[in-house]
Order: sequence, then structure tokens, then C-alpha cells
Amino acid sequence: MNGAESLIRTAVAAGVEVCFANPGTTEMPLVAALDAVEGIRAVLGLFEGVCTGAADGYARMADKPALTLLHLGPGLANGIANLHNARRARSAVVNLVGDHATWHAEADAPLASDIVSLARPVSAWIRSVRNARSLASDAAEAIAAAKKFPGRVSTLIIPSDCQWNPAEGPAQSVPAEGPGPVEALQIERTATLLRAGEKTAILLGGRGLREPALLSAGRIAAATGCHLLCETFPTRVERGAGMPSLERLPYFPEQALETLAQFHSLVLAGAARPVAFFGYPNTPSSLVPEGIEVAVLAEPEQDVAGALEALARDLKAEKKEPAVAPFAPASSPSGALNAATVGAALAATLPENAIVMDEAATTGFPFFTLSASSSRHTYLALTGGAIGQGLPCATGAAIACPDRRVVAFQADGSAMYTVQALWTQAREGLNVTTLLCNNRSYRILQVELARSGVTEPGRKAKSLMSLAAPNIDWVALARGMGVAATRAESADELVAALNRAFSARGPNFIEMML
Amino acid sequence: MNGAESLIRTAVAAGVEVCFANPGTTEMPLVAALDAVEGIRAVLGLFEGVCTGAADGYARMADKPALTLLHLGPGLANGIANLHNARRARSAVVNLVGDHATWHAEADAPLASDIVSLARPVSAWIRSVRNARSLASDAAEAIAAAKKFPGRVSTLIIPSDCQWNPAEGPAQSVPAEGPGPVEALQIERTATLLRAGEKTAILLGGRGLREPALLSAGRIAAATGCHLLCETFPTRVERGAGMPSLERLPYFPEQALETLAQFHSLVLAGAARPVAFFGYPNTPSSLVPEGIEVAVLAEPEQDVAGALEALARDLKAEKKEPAVAPFAPASSPSGALNAATVGAALAATLPENAIVMDEAATTGFPFFTLSASSSRHTYLALTGGAIGQGLPCATGAAIACPDRRVVAFQADGSAMYTVQALWTQAREGLNVTTLLCNNRSYRILQVELARSGVTEPGRKAKSLMSLAAPNIDWVALARGMGVAATRAESADELVAALNRAFSARGPNFIEMML
Repeated sequence: MNGAESLIRTAVAAGVEVCFANPGTTEMPLVAALDAVEGIRAVLGLFEGVCTGAADGYARMADKPALTLLHLGPGLANGIANLHNARRARSAVVNLVGDHATWHAEADAPLASDIVSLARPVSAWIRSVRNARSLASDAAEAIAAAKKFPGRVSTLIIPSDCQWNPAEGPAQSVPAEGPGPVEALQIERTATLLRAGEKTAILLGGRGLREPALLSAGRIAAATGCHLLCETFPTRVERGAGMPSLERLPYFPEQALETLAQFHSLVLAGAARPVAFFGYPNTPSSLVPEGIEVAVLAEPEQDVAGALEALARDLKAEKKEPAVAPFAPASSPSGALNAATVGAALAATLPENAIVMDEAATTGFPFFTLSASSSRHTYLALTGGAIGQGLPCATGAAIACPDRRVVAFQADGSAMYTVQALWTQAREGLNVTTLLCNNRSYRILQVELARSGVTEPGRKAKSLMSLAAPNIDWVALARGMGVAATRAESADELVAALNRAFSARGPNFIEMML
Repeated sequence: MNGAESLIRTAVAAGVEVCFANPGTTEMPLVAALDAVEGIRAVLGLFEGVCTGAADGYARMADKPALTLLHLGPGLANGIANLHNARRARSAVVNLVGDHATWHAEADAPLASDIVSLARPVSAWIRSVRNARSLASDAAEAIAAAKKFPGRVSTLIIPSDCQWNPAEGPAQSVPAEGPGPVEALQIERTATLLRAGEKTAILLGGRGLREPALLSAGRIAAATGCHLLCETFPTRVERGAGMPSLERLPYFPEQALETLAQFHSLVLAGAARPVAFFGYPNTPSSLVPEGIEVAVLAEPEQDVAGALEALARDLKAEKKEPAVAPFAPASSPSGALNAATVGAALAATLPENAIVMDEAATTGFPFFTLSASSSRHTYLALTGGAIGQGLPCATGAAIACPDRRVVAFQADGSAMYTVQALWTQAREGLNVTTLLCNNRSYRILQVELARSGVTEPGRKAKSLMSLAAPNIDWVALARGMGVAATRAESADELVAALNRAFSARGPNFIEMML
């Protein structure tokens, strides 16, 4: 058995089931090992950003890591933007990055580069493998590092000779660290705050947005009258009928500050302390207005679900009936397509148990509120702001959940970044419906430029924010990659197209002309 | 004047004319400054790899840097693969990377990351700007750093407050370092070697492949009988009728070793000492067989053209007539499309003064030899092995040379990486003809896997090297991005399509069914 096979056998033993791959020459022994060993599905992405974004989406839904298989520094580099999003999502991802043979490193061959320096900004754990015999145990540690609660990115750099040289066999799995325990003081302090009766919000984030945690939060709200907020860009939140309704913290800092200013105190439950997405000349970094008392019930790395359950007990709320959303989907809209009608159309037609990956940017804003009483579904957001995450992340979510319909609710500018993901959806026959918002612009930048004081942009600024001239024919792009596609010019057409798309099998694509 | 405007005015004063941009919120003051100042053309790429690859192609043809404008760490990361190629090409590129306002850095907002760590592997020069008043002089130094002969990548990281805060005005240009002088000893030693009369090859690389250097090399060959070799992946080489014919050093190490084993001595003229592209179990890193005497006439950073001219004088060859290729293009081929007929069709039809960007991988191999007597043209190669360079690099070359026809001779797997470049070609109306080699596979990997001993790949290995299932409809993709496209199923159809494409204006696209 060579090093490569010892690695793949180690991964199978650790429960890894999927490898999102775009290999090259330095990864050939690992490719051969994928064939030699049963138990890992190999999924080809035609660009590495597809692989890493898919690994993020997979981890969000499967709660365990997939492998990525990447070709030296440039292959890793192509995947970094979506690894950045995965890091911010606290998703578990194990990158396998091939490298030149150890003895070839000093030749400084054309593809050589400093892979560690590239990996560091996105990886909580990095190791450069030294020899084939340690590769299996290195892999076991990489997997355990990725699984550390709630999830992290680990990167294993594997010279090709460490793949092809002889090894002894797979390594035993290494136990992963679970969530950090929540101190009794954190629960007591929060309970005291909530008993005081002042207007309080619980800002839920991370694993605090899963079903058991949300139901505990709902019981606490029922007992104390506190408000439930959702962090602006959640990794994964359970939504719709039967789930407590959440107010989402707004994106723009002025609105977020206004939202939080209503409260006397703020409890953080799995969410980081909120900060502005960008710095602007006259707004602060922190979104928590001065004078608001902040209590940390649970950090994102702590057992937030357990903390909410303990808090509910402490408040004698464990038997309370949480206020949950009824099943009362939005009515089907009519008329022109815009953010409101698109959001309503999706909220109205969303099938039971769907997964919505929202990278719809400006067109997406109304959907979250409109879908509060839709069918029960899971909502995933762009966590790190690196656009091009939606189509890959939806692809990975569909691999994790083959029985659920995945909706990629997708801005056009962002879709273009990793459009190659459509091909993987077609090859794998994934149940992904892409809802493409064709507004022929980086609309958010038009808003941001106006915010910066430029209300009448010049010729060059306009051209840098426009996707028109030429207009992109998204139906042609989707069909060119093997995905059935149609175009909707009105809300009525959109509702009809959504109903058709959700009852079909495999991937499909709706271009919405906004 | 704010910092952003002082930067753009500094760049204009330093002779910079183009900015390949995909900006975001943190770059809005720079976008506004592009409008406020005349003299810099703003070209939008719908993915940052398009911008950086275009800057590489532009630099190769214009011999000066363009700016790129990139959005924080993830925006830079998306451009790294093509910056890696630019670094290996020794192309001059100035990256402007926006960042969070200095006072917002500690908030660790979602888009924050370690930009310096990402930039280091591809940048010879990096600076994080500290305040608006130093931004102009920082930019002047960044531009000079990029222009250091023959060219380098420099990266300037610019917090948004340093863009919007007041500045004093543009900075004076900083003189760039020219080529390092060649020592008399280098020329003498080479002359002695050549006079000895043993079988000698001059391996030309870098600036040694431009017209004056090539003609000097041709005179030296005429006087001494030495052979002229071209490095395997040249940044830019002048080719065709009127230029000395060069033998290209083969890609696979066994063949390269065999080529060099014929010689008693090897002279390096602007080329690095040749090494294997990848390490294989039974081949050495160095491609220079033991016992061969190696003389360095000029390092890539030295004045190789001057060294070849001085060497010609030293050898009394300066009046010799160099053997140059006649104008005798290949005959138009017939029959099925394969690497040989595709290469012949392109060699037969290539218009005078064309620029060929070759990222055709396995399909491209025969073209270099077949085009030796084509019309005079410029040939650009994939220098760093990071695929996805061809379409962007062709785009940048066309911006630098609006009067020349650019041919993107392009493998399908590589094209998919940065396919968004087609849209930029359409928007800018560039005279680029893409010749897409549709063999529905990563063919080079099939070869490499066989080399590694796996002659009968299993199901997963096959699937990871195949672009079939579904087949990509490249005509649909090109048209979807506004580029006129056609399909060729035979060599006859290809020749006709090429003749039509080369006489049309603006971009066009030919999908070749191999």
C-alpha cells in the first residue's frame, strides 16, 4: 500500500464520504487510490472554487467534512475565496493539496510556490507532509482538526513522493474536540438579565440556529418576552412553519444600530459580537450602541444548544410552548419581477424541506421575512462576503441531502464567479434549482457608491458596475453546461416556472429578468 | 484631492494606461477617482482571474504594467493563479487591493483576512498603506517595483480610509531599475566555449526571445554552427517568416534530457537552468545531463539582448546573415481534426502580425514546429502551469495591441477556469479569435496517469479526467457571453472558419470537435 491509499483508507475509516476534486499531475496517486478504495464518492469540479464551495455546503448540511483535492499552490489559490467563506461559516473542510516531490522542491519548477503562505489565511490547521509513512496519521489529524466543534478548515500539503512511496496502512481515527462547555456563570448571568424584565434580544448565530436550539430560544422568548434575532449572514438556520420566527439583523450599519438601539440588553447565543460589514466614514465598527449591556450565553465554539436548554430550565421555561410560525405561505405574486415579487414567488412555492442557498444580494433582501411562514426549510447565507459561493455551496448541499430540493437563489454578478458549478450539478444529476436574478449589474455596488457620496457616477464607474453591454444570456450558459433552463419575465411566469422546476428531477435553472 | 485621486494621478504620470478591475465596496473611492482623472482605461473582468491574467498579457505585449483593482483578500485570492503565471513570466503587474478602513481592521469583519500572506507567494514587492498622504508615493514605488527589469508583480494594499481621506497630490515617478549589466567574463567564457567547436546549444529565454536578441543569436549560430533552443514555456517569442527557427525544449523530462544529451555544452541566454516540470519517480529534477558544460551568458534579469549582441561582436559574427525562416506556411489540412491538423490549419491561415496565446495543452504541441514558416507572429505560452491563463492573457494582449489579431489557442479544461474572459472581449470589442480544442477531457492528465503506471484507470479516475457527461456546448457558452461563435467538425471546416474569423472585427470563437 502506498501513502495515497493509506490516506484514503484513513479518511473512509474516519467517516469521510465525499471528495470534491480537481486534481493534476501531482495528485495522480491519490486519484488512483480513490479507485482502489470503496467508500468515497469523487465529484469533479471544473474550477477549484466549485470544489471548496461545495465542501462548505456539504459540511453545513452533513455536519462532517468532505475532502477537497487540489493541485499545488495555484489550485489551492483558486479555492481560497470559498474557503474564506467556509472559515467564516465554521464549516469542517479537509483540503488535500498535492505538491512537488520533496526532492524536486529545490528545483523551483514552474508550478512551485509557497503553499503554506496561501493556506494560512483560511486554515485553522496546516501540515506539510514529510514522508509516506506518516501520511495516514497526518490525515487522521487533519480530519480531527477539521471536525473540532463546530468545524474548521484544515489543509494537508502532500508532496507527490509521499503519495507514491510505500506506507504501512491506514491510521486510526483521532477523536475530534467537541463544543467547549458553557460555564454556569454564563447561564446565570443571562438568566438574571432576562428576569430583570428590561427589553432584551437574544442574537442567535452558528449552531444556535438549528432546530433544538431555536425551540429552546422560542421557549425562553415565550417565558420572558425577549426578542429573537438572527445574525445577518447565518451559516444555516432552520426556518418556516413550526420554527420560531426570527428578525434578521440588517446588513447596513445604520439599520443594524437602529434595530439594536431598541434594546436594553443583548444576549449573544452562538453569534459573534456584531460588527459593521464595511467601515464607512461616519459609522462605528461595532453595531452595539453604547450603553447596551451585552451578555455572552455561548461563544460559537461552545455548546450553544445545551446552553439555551439549560437557560430555559433555569427560567422554568422548559415546558412553555414556543411561539412558532404557522404554515401560511405568501400568496403568489403577479406583475413585474422585482425583489419583493421574486421573494414572494419563492416563499409561496417553496417545497417542504427545501434548502435555500441565498446569494441573491440586493434581490434577496425581502425573501427572509417573506418566507417566515413558508414550508419548513433550511436557509444558508453567504458567510464571508466572498462572492461566488452560491452555486458551489448549493451543489455541495445537494450532495449531502439527495432527497431534498436545493434552491440556489443567486445574484448574476456573483453567479458568474463560479458558474462552472452548473456543470457539476448536471453531471451528478443534483436536485438544484437555480433562480438567477438578472439585473445586469453589481447592484449592491451602485448602492455603495451612492452611500460614499457619488450619486451621479461617471462613465467608468458606471461601466465597472454594469453587467450589460453585452447582456449575458444565462439560459444559454446553463444549457451549455447541460442544465435545463427557462426564462421568466413576470411574477406569473416565475411562479409557473418554479412549480415546474420543483416537481422535476435533476438540476434546472430559471433566469429572472428583473 | 483624496488619496485615491492622488494614486490615479500618480499612475497616469508614470505612464500607466489601463486598469483591469473588479472592485467592491472598499474600492469605491478608487472607482470614483478613475472617473475624475483622464488617461486610464477601466476594463471590467467578471472574475479577478480575468483581470490578473489580462494584466499579464498586457505587460507581455506593452512592456509596461497595467493596474489591477481587486477587492480585499478574496478578490486577490481569485487572481493569484494568474499572478503566479505572471510572476513566472516576469511580467510587470501592479495590484491595487482594497482593504477595510484602518480603524475597522480590529473588528475582524466577515471579509477581513491576512492579505499580505496571500500576496507574498506571487509578489516581489508588497506594501500595506498606512495613510492617505503617503498613498501617492507608495503607488509610485509600487509601479517602479513592477517595472524592475524585466518585470515583477507588486501589490499595494490600500485601506479604504486611505483612499477617501485628504492627500496632497500625485507623487513624482520613481525610476525603475533596468537590466543588470552582463559581466565581460560571461561573454568571454561563452565565446571561448563556442570557439572550441564542440556541439553547443544556446537556450534562449525571457527577453532573449525578442527580435533583436533572436537576430543576434541567429548571427552567432551562422558563425559558429551552434543550435538555438527555445525554453519550453516562453513568455513571448517572435516567430515565423524572417525570424531564426528555434527548437523548443520538450515538455516531458525524458525527451528534454535526450535533446540536451546531444550537446557538449549549453549556453543559457535569458533562460533559467532547465528543470523538470514535475518530479517523477525515476527522472532527475535537472534536465541537463551530467557532464554537459553550462555557461550563463545572461540571467533573465540581465541585459540578454546586449549580451547576445556583444557575443556576436566578440565572435566577429555581427555582419553574418542569420538563417531565418522563409515565408512558407503549412498547406491547409484536410480530414479529421486532431493536434496535427489543427496546428497545420492555424499555421496555414495565421494573419501577418498575429499574436498566438497557446494554452492548447496536448492539442497544441505540434503547432510550434508547424508555424516556423508562417506569417511573422508573436507566440505567448503558459509560463507558470496554472491553467486558466489563455483567455485572460489573450484579452490583455488585445488591449495592448488593438491593431493585431490575437488567437487564443485554448484547451477546453483550461478555458473553463476563466471562461468569463469572453464577456470582457465582447464588451471591449477586442480582436480575439478563440480556437477551442474540445476533446472533452483533461487529456494531459490521462497521459500523466498512464506515466504513473495506471494504464487502465478505474471508474473514479476516468470521471475525474473527463469533461464529458455532460458534454459542454462551447458555442452556447461563447454566444451567451456575446461572442460570435461557430463549430468546426473537420479540418476543412476549420480552415474556412479561421479565414472568416480572421477577416472579421471584434471577438469570435471556433469550437473544434476533436
